[in-house]
Amino acid sequence: MTPVERAPLAGADLTRALFAPGSIALVGASSDPGKASSRPLGYLRRDGFPGAVYAVNRRGGTNGGETVYRSLGELPEVPEHVFLMTPAADVVDTVEECGRAGVRLVTVLSGGFAESGPEGLTRERALREASLAHGVRVLGPNSLGVVNPHARLTLTANAAFHEADLQAGGIMVASHSGSMLGALLSRGRERGLGFARMASTGGEVDLSLGEICAATVDDDEVTGYLLFLESLQHADRIREFALAAAERGKPVVAYKLGRSAVAAELAQSHTGALAGEDDVAGAFLADCGIARVSTLDGLVEALPLLRNVRPRVRDSMPRRVGVVTTTGGGAAMVVDQLGLRGVPMATPSDETRHRLVAEGVRTAFGSVVDLTLAGTRPEIMGAAVDVLGAAEEVDLLVVVVGSSARTQPELAVAPLVERANRGYPLAVFVVPDAPRALTMLAAAAVPAFRTPESCADVVAAALSRSVPGAVAAGRAGRRGARVLDEASSYRRLADLDVPIAPYTVIPVSGPVPRGLNYPVAVKALSADLAHKSEAGGVVLGVEGPEEVRSAAARIRHAVAAVGVDLREVLVQQMCPALGEVLIGYRLDPEVGPLVVVAAGGVLAELYRDRAVRLAPVDLATAREMLGEVTSLGALRGFRGLPEGDLDALAGLVTRFSTLATSNDIVEAELNPVLIGRVGEGVTAVDAVVRVGHEDEERRRP
Amino acid sequence: MTPVERAPLAGADLTRALFAPGSIALVGASSDPGKASSRPLGYLRRDGFPGAVYAVNRRGGTNGGETVYRSLGELPEVPEHVFLMTPAADVVDTVEECGRAGVRLVTVLSGGFAESGPEGLTRERALREASLAHGVRVLGPNSLGVVNPHARLTLTANAAFHEADLQAGGIMVASHSGSMLGALLSRGRERGLGFARMASTGGEVDLSLGEICAATVDDDEVTGYLLFLESLQHADRIREFALAAAERGKPVVAYKLGRSAVAAELAQSHTGALAGEDDVAGAFLADCGIARVSTLDGLVEALPLLRNVRPRVRDSMPRRVGVVTTTGGGAAMVVDQLGLRGVPMATPSDETRHRLVAEGVRTAFGSVVDLTLAGTRPEIMGAAVDVLGAAEEVDLLVVVVGSSARTQPELAVAPLVERANRGYPLAVFVVPDAPRALTMLAAAAVPAFRTPESCADVVAAALSRSVPGAVAAGRAGRRGARVLDEASSYRRLADLDVPIAPYTVIPVSGPVPRGLNYPVAVKALSADLAHKSEAGGVVLGVEGPEEVRSAAARIRHAVAAVGVDLREVLVQQMCPALGEVLIGYRLDPEVGPLVVVAAGGVLAELYRDRAVRLAPVDLATAREMLGEVTSLGALRGFRGLPEGDLDALAGLVTRFSTLATSNDIVEAELNPVLIGRVGEGVTAVDAVVRVGHEDEERRRP
Repeated sequence: MTPVERAPLAGADLTRALFAPGSIALVGASSDPGKASSRPLGYLRRDGFPGAVYAVNRRGGTNGGETVYRSLGELPEVPEHVFLMTPAADVVDTVEECGRAGVRLVTVLSGGFAESGPEGLTRERALREASLAHGVRVLGPNSLGVVNPHARLTLTANAAFHEADLQAGGIMVASHSGSMLGALLSRGRERGLGFARMASTGGEVDLSLGEICAATVDDDEVTGYLLFLESLQHADRIREFALAAAERGKPVVAYKLGRSAVAAELAQSHTGALAGEDDVAGAFLADCGIARVSTLDGLVEALPLLRNVRPRVRDSMPRRVGVVTTTGGGAAMVVDQLGLRGVPMATPSDETRHRLVAEGVRTAFGSVVDLTLAGTRPEIMGAAVDVLGAAEEVDLLVVVVGSSARTQPELAVAPLVERANRGYPLAVFVVPDAPRALTMLAAAAVPAFRTPESCADVVAAALSRSVPGAVAAGRAGRRGARVLDEASSYRRLADLDVPIAPYTVIPVSGPVPRGLNYPVAVKALSADLAHKSEAGGVVLGVEGPEEVRSAAARIRHAVAAVGVDLREVLVQQMCPALGEVLIGYRLDPEVGPLVVVAAGGVLAELYRDRAVRLAPVDLATAREMLGEVTSLGALRGFRGLPEGDLDALAGLVTRFSTLATSNDIVEAELNPVLIGRVGEGVTAVDAVVRVGHEDEERRRP
Repeated sequence: MTPVERAPLAGADLTRALFAPGSIALVGASSDPGKASSRPLGYLRRDGFPGAVYAVNRRGGTNGGETVYRSLGELPEVPEHVFLMTPAADVVDTVEECGRAGVRLVTVLSGGFAESGPEGLTRERALREASLAHGVRVLGPNSLGVVNPHARLTLTANAAFHEADLQAGGIMVASHSGSMLGALLSRGRERGLGFARMASTGGEVDLSLGEICAATVDDDEVTGYLLFLESLQHADRIREFALAAAERGKPVVAYKLGRSAVAAELAQSHTGALAGEDDVAGAFLADCGIARVSTLDGLVEALPLLRNVRPRVRDSMPRRVGVVTTTGGGAAMVVDQLGLRGVPMATPSDETRHRLVAEGVRTAFGSVVDLTLAGTRPEIMGAAVDVLGAAEEVDLLVVVVGSSARTQPELAVAPLVERANRGYPLAVFVVPDAPRALTMLAAAAVPAFRTPESCADVVAAALSRSVPGAVAAGRAGRRGARVLDEASSYRRLADLDVPIAPYTVIPVSGPVPRGLNYPVAVKALSADLAHKSEAGGVVLGVEGPEEVRSAAARIRHAVAAVGVDLREVLVQQMCPALGEVLIGYRLDPEVGPLVVVAAGGVLAELYRDRAVRLAPVDLATAREMLGEVTSLGALRGFRGLPEGDLDALAGLVTRFSTLATSNDIVEAELNPVLIGRVGEGVTAVDAVVRVGHEDEERRRP
């Protein structure tokens, strides 16, 4: 065989090679049933995979009665998908051999790459190069493989597939972690869920989770996506995929690790220190229209509900939950959890109350309609659900069923099953352990939950999921980034119409110009001082020319101690303010352009009181962000305090976020921005900008 | 029969009448199997309750072939326990009838009391009076009954007990909500847990949840308590019980509703507005040594782990978690959840690493020991668990088992079962759906969890549970409380050695004394001004005598607008400060004396940044509280800022908390307390005290 020149696999060709190849070679397949590398052949044969499967192993011989080929060259055809299980040291050579043989897709099970130190890192680089040079798409390394029950493809070394009879269905699972496939499989199985595809994406040396999912969006067998994310690497691909899925009305739910990670970044600015954290991931996923859950059960249980809840129009009013229950205690648990997640409750309107009474529902109608024992009469439960489900004030109806769900599901659960498709979103929390009820509900595709926490988790995620944002473009270009000093930063931001307190730049030991409006702040002007206050580079409340000179001298002396030979100071008019915030912009290497609004000063870091969005943002989103910054509550007429000019602030956030279309700014920060009274506007009194080279271009659709 | 004069049932007599009575009368028992009131007779007969059971119903006739008595008077004996299922309107009369007949305990199933409006409230009052007047103990109203599998007593109308064969065991369940008994029963059953007692406490007109539990602490059949709390009513009883349980080494776990309740109290002071919230419940439960969980599964799954983890010595160092896993992704989920709950991880020491290697465990040793596939070799898993379980730096070991737990529990789960009683606390999270593994672990009493959230929830609760505090006495006396003005408040607090900024009181229009240290604050002095700043009653930064006079005039004019005829102002020296806090004390009507430290000023309310404890507190606890107030991080050398005198602050908190031994102060607040640099101390610049009448005395052991 001779090497063939062709474009790397993509689109439908990629999907077919991944999930429905005509032929497979299992390179490094073992015949020892104790070894993981024996599993793929066993699974494929057990499940009756219809394509050709070739076992390849240097040793030759037989495996389960089948001929073992000694090399790819011996095979009667070029396999469409190679599953590679050789030791790490052999992987690169084998991929090259595949390339020469005309193989276009290799899944690499082997470990021993970037995760295992410098040698592994070198190996990973070589693998990437081999993939590019030979036009071979690579899934992995450290991929546990792919599964497609519709095609009887169980091409994986995951022990969880020892269990046969995987139910085919509409869910595609994609996971950075291979071992999680087994957990999701078994938990889904227990819930009667069927799977369309499963992929363990491992080290993503070439194919990433986003690209693999994107390749399947037009596949009718896939109706929804379930993602287990360890990071947001290749976030641009995830985004492309999410937008494509949203266009086709296929919901995506994700669980992402790292919610509690304490970022120990030694970044140069506060914005840097603030990024790389969990709320950045949250902002990214939200912007992609991906529903993010925070419980494992929620991940498994989310898709049936997401299918029934339309994405929210961006920046529209929060959606509301109605609750019907047969048990006050059970409902209170869900309501409590919804409250913790900020989900508002719907109180039945007068019209709804009248309708309930007309239907024979007689109970106290608070925000929870507690039917108590009457709820175990099917006609009462049915009527209550019909009325509340259709009520205008209810965007989603949670039904809580108590003990009868276990012993007599025909009472309160059966009417819910009958109402599976009445056009209003329904979520059921079953308070007891009630397998029969759960089976009935699952069979009817009624979204059902077994803990108040997963129920509230998924309901909150479903209601807050919105249509993806139309973020224009993201660029990665952080290498060689250069910090501008305060005055240069102001100039660089001039186009954004940032209101800046009047200032002038003077030599450290020169004369002080006349006409300054005192008091002023005197600040060291140097690109080499990341935190000038801490270095003694700032003197506030300076009241006259003589004091300016002495402040400048003191500053020069202070910053000399940190190795800065100061030539100039920036003298800036001080102005009164009701409060202050930080506005930051950053081109995040993972998720792209971000805008941050944070509580001002020291509190920004202590409280992590901030709002993050992908940039740019419109005025409505900027206002939503200001609503999320707790400290700004003090400027909204709280306890009779004067109100701050939050309209002006929102306008500045919007303009600042357009840095996302800048060619070279990778990070910028206004800190602090002083907030005046309503009508007085806002004023920035410090700024720092970092510019970088465009060493890589990333585009978003 | 004639009424008998005796003391109300208590202690062992109460326990016996509740959970192992010699005879029971079911008053209002129906023979219609569709009615809840038919259930107790059916359950008792089905389960072979050995005592006498009498059905009583005005209509007479038979019920399931048994004679139905028309009244209590017809019974051949005085029943030890009456279960009352008549309509609400008949309850009080029947309880009185019971009293006259010599019955000493009545459980009231009937609803229609305080929960159902004014008429019900009147009825509830009458029921309480009947109980007292006739010396009849009452459980309920709205109690679904009591259960004791050891005595074959299923005295309940809960539909969940339709299922027979309740497994007897050591857990006592007590719940404000009757319907939750069924959920806890079925979920416990599914986990192989056995129950000793169950009680639905309903409206607590007489017997409260705490008293019922307390009555059973010396019962050997009860080894631990599981509480479902809707409120903290009768908190003193809960506390008495918890202390008694702690003395006997019987763990208590609680789930409490109301975590997200937005308190809409219109309290007069900030401390008032801050109390009545979830962290108050948290402080109370923690002080009682009760482990509080926040997930439903955690509630059901907690006791096996709590039995193995000793309560923490108060104010000792936080305890640490070690993690062994076969799956990186699975362990990361637990670690993430532990991090969210502030549980520190144990990093293996060099000694531990050497031991692991010596035992053949070869892997990367981060804070998580990830065995990967090697973990499915029983000897490797066993060795890793032995080494880490015994390691000094590990206080509790979490073992995470991946897919093999489902398909081959003999690999990684069996070695855990063998290590059930090796003297170190072990918690297992099983990542896949793995019923067989869970059954094996449950049978060996190895604490096992099925979600990362419930695992982390219980581990965090177990590690933070400490021995109960020795709070001395609590008094309720809020009625008729009277607010003191600022100067009187200062005087009233003189014994506590509160450092107060120098002040003087002058007539509004009188002369200004000489020798004031300017600048000063001028403040309206009146007990009728709860929020003097908002009423225009405070002028800050006043620089001389003339300005004091004009400030006083302005203040008089301003407060006149809110109806206060001002006679005097308080003139107080202003002093510089690094930061400020609020210190509050409150005699909470539910949980007793509380001390609060909160972020200063407006932020106290916006961020709810505060720490709450039952008062009094010692210096170590006061320091722990300061550690919980986020804003105080700014005074701990953060970003090169000067450090505040937190030692002085902790001392003041301790002294202030001794208000718990005051006879008449029901609420007091220092707001703000200014914090100077280290060595400079702290200074209160405002205070408000409320005194009350002692209209009720509550004692704590």
